[in-house]
Amino acid sequence: MKKQYDAIRAAAYDANMQLPKLGLVLFTFGNVSAADHEQRVFAIKPSGVPYDELSPAMMVIVDFDGNVVDGALRPSSDTKTHAVLYNHWPDVGGIVHTHSTYATAWAQALSDIPIFGTTHADHTTADIPCAPPMDDQMIAGDYEYQTGFQILHCLAERKLSYHDMEMILVGSHAPFTWGKDCRKAVYNSAVLESVAQMAYLTRQIHPDAVRLKESLIRKHYERKHGPHSYYGQ
Amino acid sequence: MKKQYDAIRAAAYDANMQLPKLGLVLFTFGNVSAADHEQRVFAIKPSGVPYDELSPAMMVIVDFDGNVVDGALRPSSDTKTHAVLYNHWPDVGGIVHTHSTYATAWAQALSDIPIFGTTHADHTTADIPCAPPMDDQMIAGDYEYQTGFQILHCLAERKLSYHDMEMILVGSHAPFTWGKDCRKAVYNSAVLESVAQMAYLTRQIHPDAVRLKESLIRKHYERKHGPHSYYGQ
Amino acid sequence: MKKQYDAIRAAAYDANMQLPKLGLVLFTFGNVSAADHEQRVFAIKPSGVPYDELSPAMMVIVDFDGNVVDGALRPSSDTKTHAVLYNHWPDVGGIVHTHSTYATAWAQALSDIPIFGTTHADHTTADIPCAPPMDDQMIAGDYEYQTGFQILHCLAERKLSYHDMEMILVGSHAPFTWGKDCRKAVYNSAVLESVAQMAYLTRQIHPDAVRLKESLIRKHYERKHGPHSYYGQ
Amino acid sequence: MKKQYDAIRAAAYDANMQLPKLGLVLFTFGNVSAADHEQRVFAIKPSGVPYDELSPAMMVIVDFDGNVVDGALRPSSDTKTHAVLYNHWPDVGGIVHTHSTYATAWAQALSDIPIFGTTHADHTTADIPCAPPMDDQMIAGDYEYQTGFQILHCLAERKLSYHDMEMILVGSHAPFTWGKDCRKAVYNSAVLESVAQMAYLTRQIHPDAVRLKESLIRKHYERKHGPHSYYGQ
Repeated sequence: MKKQYDAIRAAAYDANMQLPKLGLVLFTFGNVSAADHEQRVFAIKPSGVPYDELSPAMMVIVDFDGNVVDGALRPSSDTKTHAVLYNHWPDVGGIVHTHSTYATAWAQALSDIPIFGTTHADHTTADIPCAPPMDDQMIAGDYEYQTGFQILHCLAERKLSYHDMEMILVGSHAPFTWGKDCRKAVYNSAVLESVAQMAYLTRQIHPDAVRLKESLIRKHYERKHGPHSYYGQ
Repeated sequence: MKKQYDAIRAAAYDANMQLPKLGLVLFTFGNVSAADHEQRVFAIKPSGVPYDELSPAMMVIVDFDGNVVDGALRPSSDTKTHAVLYNHWPDVGGIVHTHSTYATAWAQALSDIPIFGTTHADHTTADIPCAPPMDDQMIAGDYEYQTGFQILHCLAERKLSYHDMEMILVGSHAPFTWGKDCRKAVYNSAVLESVAQMAYLTRQIHPDAVRLKESLIRKHYERKHGPHSYYGQ
Repeated sequence: MKKQYDAIRAAAYDANMQLPKLGLVLFTFGNVSAADHEQRVFAIKPSGVPYDELSPAMMVIVDFDGNVVDGALRPSSDTKTHAVLYNHWPDVGGIVHTHSTYATAWAQALSDIPIFGTTHADHTTADIPCAPPMDDQMIAGDYEYQTGFQILHCLAERKLSYHDMEMILVGSHAPFTWGKDCRKAVYNSAVLESVAQMAYLTRQIHPDAVRLKESLIRKHYERKHGPHSYYGQ
Repeated sequence: MKKQYDAIRAAAYDANMQLPKLGLVLFTFGNVSAADHEQRVFAIKPSGVPYDELSPAMMVIVDFDGNVVDGALRPSSDTKTHAVLYNHWPDVGGIVHTHSTYATAWAQALSDIPIFGTTHADHTTADIPCAPPMDDQMIAGDYEYQTGFQILHCLAERKLSYHDMEMILVGSHAPFTWGKDCRKAVYNSAVLESVAQMAYLTRQIHPDAVRLKESLIRKHYERKHGPHSYYGQ
């Protein structure tokens, strides 16, 4: 096991262990990776290993083409999706995939999550997109690889930058989130689940609930992320 | 207490203790059994005993005709259902019955759980069937014995093998799950509850939500269970 | 503090402490009492005292007319309701009042909880009744005393015995449950909340869901409570 | 760090730490302040600091015009809203802001929470108001300052006193609650979330559910808060 990957192994391990604590996964239904863009590799959870048996050493090192370069175990079955995204997104240091309950329900309903309130706008200014399911040929082909492109295409079509929108639903499947590092990506997964639950309840209370107005979207996003942000330390 | 049953007593005990930890039971509303097909017996939870008072020694040993062969306590009231299923299913080593909230709600609504997403397809390729309630004569007769046959008939009618579909709803009642061993059967109970909740939410978000398309069902099931599966270690 | 009440003080204390553990109360929104029919008194939670500050000695002893006979604190504001019920029900040793979420929602909707499944039938054969709100004169009068009679009248009108139906919703308000002792009464509060949640979900899945058929109601109730019951030890 | 603020720093710290314990916040999405009306200052959570890293010393002291007067960190981004309210409300010693799930969903639906039951009436006699979102000019201006006035105006328009109504929804945003001290304000946040969930469920069970009748509203409010109240010690 190579020393040069210790840092991303440790980071990926810590981030993976956050998923059950945050109530975002049942059994092994999720995975986090942590990337090192200089070495062009990422550390990712081994496939099907329960969270309480994980150790940093079990994290598998994979290059941006999806090839295992270090580690004794088979990487997550979603590894190629992570590889495609890292390959296209130089500023993303962590990616998370879960089947968290409410976000997955929206994905199964093939619906974007409308921006209904400031909790949403604190994190992004657009509806959270739901990428359509792939066509049958892509599914039968290199499925997880194509899932990565499905995500890229959906963002492109919606004219969304991966810097501004750090979460997506893959239709019929489940959510992916990302961030500058894997801590932020896990944070985004928890925020997404909370926003998905609130949007669900909002629609149930008022089926014709309207999107948050533009001035409030701008205000909340800017106070956290704009050049004159005044949130945090 | 006979030594030859120690292994299934221990397995059944451990599996029963998972039910409250996974949030699948209130009080004593559930039971797990572990079978030994060579000896043609299974170990099952004693009836009405709270989980925190259980011990491996309290597990009752029952043969495949439903007769107690070892143990001081009365077995679960659902014992004959387990016996019928083991008698017909040589490859099943564990069976679980719970009244978990969302799965039971679908059973009470007399509805199959539609396959809406990949979380479902990762485990089975069909809607999770809801067996109709029995006719009054069968209910008045040997009820728990007949429940076993109700399950067998429902799978037969749907042309489902117990190898491919390891979970069922008994209409107006609650779910049963099974697997190659009782750990897998408990795992299936937790998966069923999660899938039941997601399907519930999906329908609430979009009442006309459509079933997962066939190519995605195949892809997800095969990558976990097919001859070329690449999930797990 | 009189020794002769030690047993019911201890029982009431233990039972009260179960409410937060079972997730049935927020802050002080609930109370349990334990009766001694020979002495014609009951021990009840003091009003407004947080559960984590309770001790057995703080339980207030009240007679069946609602007068405090021992104890330094003011009893629960619902004390007179408990008194009326003990006065009329010689076989009831414990009463519980909570504002548990789903049961209270049905009470607020002024709806009985329909018997949709065997979880319900394992405990009672009828819909769980929702007593109508009292008329304004009774509310303005001795309100908690009248609440007791409202419960008695509702059961009488429905031709339900307090032996067979150990739970009720008071319309616009919240549930009461009872039993042969206060442990059983607490058990019933948890069962009611679970049944209320399942019935809620059943209706959401299928708005026209039908009541459980009579043969299944009988079967499940009899196997737990009939002369030939075979549930438990 | 000045000694004269030790008491409100300790109080604000303790109250902030209650929010995650009561399940009212995800990450840093909430804040509590504790006021000293003699010194005309309040202690408030620093912005964006996770709850498990907080200490009493980190609480920021702010005057009623919103200026930091003591403390090394930047105060909560919602600080000016707190300042406006303390400046207008001499009897309020604590204010809480959360994004608790159900209360926020009602705020996103731009709906008051109707008074459906006694749980609600135990705390206030009116529907919990939802203040409309501000006009664009106010949002673009001094947003958090204007949020305070939006709350004041909404209460005035509804003819509600801040003594009788200690909670509000800010439309499209989330709830604020207050009280004579910050313990009571936190208590009100938990009550609001519970009442919001029950009202949600009530509407789902019965879309035409009616408001609690006036006699019951009066009775329940008076027994806890009236001159002849008999709740508590």
